Amino acid sequence: MDRATDAYAAAGVDISAGNAAVSLYKQLTGSWKHPDQIGELGAFNGLFRLPGDPEQALVASTDGVGTKILIAAILRRYDSVGADLVNHCVNDILVANATPLFFLDYVAVGKLVPEMAAEIVAGIHRACRENQTALLGGETAEMPGLYKPGEFDLAGTIVGIVRLADLPKTDRVVPGDAIIALPAIGLHTNGYSLARTLVPEDEWGAPLPEGGGVTFADALLAPHPSYLQSVKAIREAADVKAMSHITGGGLLENVPRTLPASCKAIFEQTRWQVPALMRELVRRGSLNHEDRYRTFNMGIGYTLTVALDQAPKALAAAPGAFVAGWIEARGDGDPAVVVHPARER
Amino acid sequence: MDRATDAYAAAGVDISAGNAAVSLYKQLTGSWKHPDQIGELGAFNGLFRLPGDPEQALVASTDGVGTKILIAAILRRYDSVGADLVNHCVNDILVANATPLFFLDYVAVGKLVPEMAAEIVAGIHRACRENQTALLGGETAEMPGLYKPGEFDLAGTIVGIVRLADLPKTDRVVPGDAIIALPAIGLHTNGYSLARTLVPEDEWGAPLPEGGGVTFADALLAPHPSYLQSVKAIREAADVKAMSHITGGGLLENVPRTLPASCKAIFEQTRWQVPALMRELVRRGSLNHEDRYRTFNMGIGYTLTVALDQAPKALAAAPGAFVAGWIEARGDGDPAVVVHPARER
Repeated sequence: MDRATDAYAAAGVDISAGNAAVSLYKQLTGSWKHPDQIGELGAFNGLFRLPGDPEQALVASTDGVGTKILIAAILRRYDSVGADLVNHCVNDILVANATPLFFLDYVAVGKLVPEMAAEIVAGIHRACRENQTALLGGETAEMPGLYKPGEFDLAGTIVGIVRLADLPKTDRVVPGDAIIALPAIGLHTNGYSLARTLVPEDEWGAPLPEGGGVTFADALLAPHPSYLQSVKAIREAADVKAMSHITGGGLLENVPRTLPASCKAIFEQTRWQVPALMRELVRRGSLNHEDRYRTFNMGIGYTLTVALDQAPKALAAAPGAFVAGWIEARGDGDPAVVVHPARER
Repeated sequence: MDRATDAYAAAGVDISAGNAAVSLYKQLTGSWKHPDQIGELGAFNGLFRLPGDPEQALVASTDGVGTKILIAAILRRYDSVGADLVNHCVNDILVANATPLFFLDYVAVGKLVPEMAAEIVAGIHRACRENQTALLGGETAEMPGLYKPGEFDLAGTIVGIVRLADLPKTDRVVPGDAIIALPAIGLHTNGYSLARTLVPEDEWGAPLPEGGGVTFADALLAPHPSYLQSVKAIREAADVKAMSHITGGGLLENVPRTLPASCKAIFEQTRWQVPALMRELVRRGSLNHEDRYRTFNMGIGYTLTVALDQAPKALAAAPGAFVAGWIEARGDGDPAVVVHPARER
C-alpha cells in the first residue's frame, strides 16, 4: 500500500484512503483464514506453512513499481524497471530473513510491441539471475482501452522460504542498539507521483543540480538495488535483530515494524548524504519534514538493527553500510521514529 | 498471453505480436534457468521443486482478467471480477493436477476509493475461501496519471502444489479417448476487447437476444467459475489423462497442449449449446470459424480427456459435464483441433 503525505496527496496519492482500504481488507479477512496461513493480511509479507515441514514457511509478496513506469514509458527505457521490480520484491521478503525461490511478472500494455515487452522481461530475467531466483512465469496482457499505446503497467510476485526460527523477533530490540543503514541510490520505486509534479518532463534532459553531471532522467530512473548480498554478508558476520526495507512511507512508516512498543528509533541525518535528486525535490516542493521522510527514502534503502558491539562487524561485512542512528526507550506519546534535525519549514 | 484472430486484431489485440513476445522471452530465459525450476518460461504453468521433497513441486501462475475490467468499471460492479480472477488462476493450475495453496492480488487504481478497492478484494477473498486457498497478501497501488479516476487493473498470482507423479502425461492420450467438457457460463475472462467493439456501452442495459431476459451487462459480467470441485470429483471417479482450461485462444489454442503429436481432438458442436451472448457476438461480427473458436470459449470452459470406458463414471461425477468430442489419429498436416461443423461464412 502506497502511503502519502500532504504534498503527496496534492500529487494525487491519498494516505488516508490507503489506510482505510487496508482496514476494510482486514475486516474481510478476519472472517476466514486458511489454516496454514501465518499472520494476517495487511502485514508486510504473507507466510504459509511449507507443506511437509512445519518448521519452515513460504513467504510471498506482490508489488509494482508505481508511476516510475510513466517515466520509463516516456523515455522508452524498459530494461531498468523490470530489474527495479525484482529487486524491490527480493528486499521486501528479505526483511523476514527469507531466501527468494521464484518470481512471476505481470506486464500489461495498451499495444503489444514485442521488443518493448522483451526489454522489460530481459530486465526481470537479469535481476532474477543476479538474485538466484527462478523466473517461473508471467502474464503479458494486451489491453487496448485501459492503457494508452506507449504506456504499460508492471507488477510482480515473489515467493521465498524461511525457517520459522529465523523470523525476526523485534522484542530482542533494546535501547542502545545501533541502526545500520544501506544507502539508497535514488527514489527506488516510491514517491514518483510527487516527483513528477515537481520535475516536469521538459526538464528531464537537463542536468540535476549538484548531480555531478547526471540528468534528471538518469537520476529518476536510477535502479532500485537488491540488498540480498549485503544483508547475507552482514547476517553471517553479526547478529541482526530486525530489518526494514524503506519503501512507500519512508523511514517514518517502515521502521516502526522493526520496533517493540517500548522502543523508538532515532536517526541522525548528518550521518549520511541525502542524494542530490531528493535534495532538489525537497527544495522545489518546499517539503516539510513529514513530506520528506514519509514520501522519499531520503538516502536510506534498508536498515538492520544490531547490538552496539555487533556494529563494527556488520559495517565491515558490507561496503557502504553506515550507522544511521540508534534505539532509545520510548515514552508515552513519543513517536516511533525521530529523524534529527527535524526543522519544520 | 492473450491470443487473437483477424477480428480480434481489428479490436486491438494482436496475436502475432503475442507470439513474437513469447518467442523473445524464451530466447532470454534460455540463457539461464534456476536449478530447481522444472520446464521452461512460456509453458502454461511454472514448476519449482518443493524444498525438502523432491517428489513434489510448487506450481505458480499469474494472470489478469483482461478488459472485462473496463466493463466492471463502467458498471461499477467490483465484486465479481475479483472472484473471476481467483477462479481463473485456480483453473490454470488445475490442469497440472495442482491443489491451490495461496493467492496474492495486485489492484492498481487511478484514484483509490477504499470501498471500491474493498469490494474487489471482497470478491477475491470470497473466491479464495470457496477454493480453500489462502489470500496471503497483495498490493493496492494508487497511480494517478496511469489510470483514469474510475478505472483500475487487477492481476493475481496463485501458488499450488502437485506430486510430480501426478503431472498429466499427454502421451497416454490415444485415438478413441473421449473429451469430457465442463460448460462455460459466459466469456469468462477472454475476448472482451472484441466483445466491447461488437456491443457498445449504450446497449448494455438492453436484453440479450434469446438470453431469457438477461441484459447484455449481466451476460458480459457472468462469472468465471472455478472447476476445482467438478474436476476433483471426476478425478476421484475416473482416470483422467489430460486437461485444458479454455482461456485466451479458445479450443483451438488450449486443447493442443493436451495432445501427443500423434493425436488430434475432434469436437462436435451439436453436442452442446453455445451461450446466447456468444451466438449474438458471432452474428453481429459475422465471425468466421477461426474467429469464434480462437477468441471465445464458445461454451466450453474446461476439458478432460479419458478412455471411452471411463466416460460414464466421469459424467456421473460432475453435474453438467458432457461428452464434447473425441481423439483421433493425426495425419501429416492435420490441424490439432477440429470443431464440426466448420462452415466458413
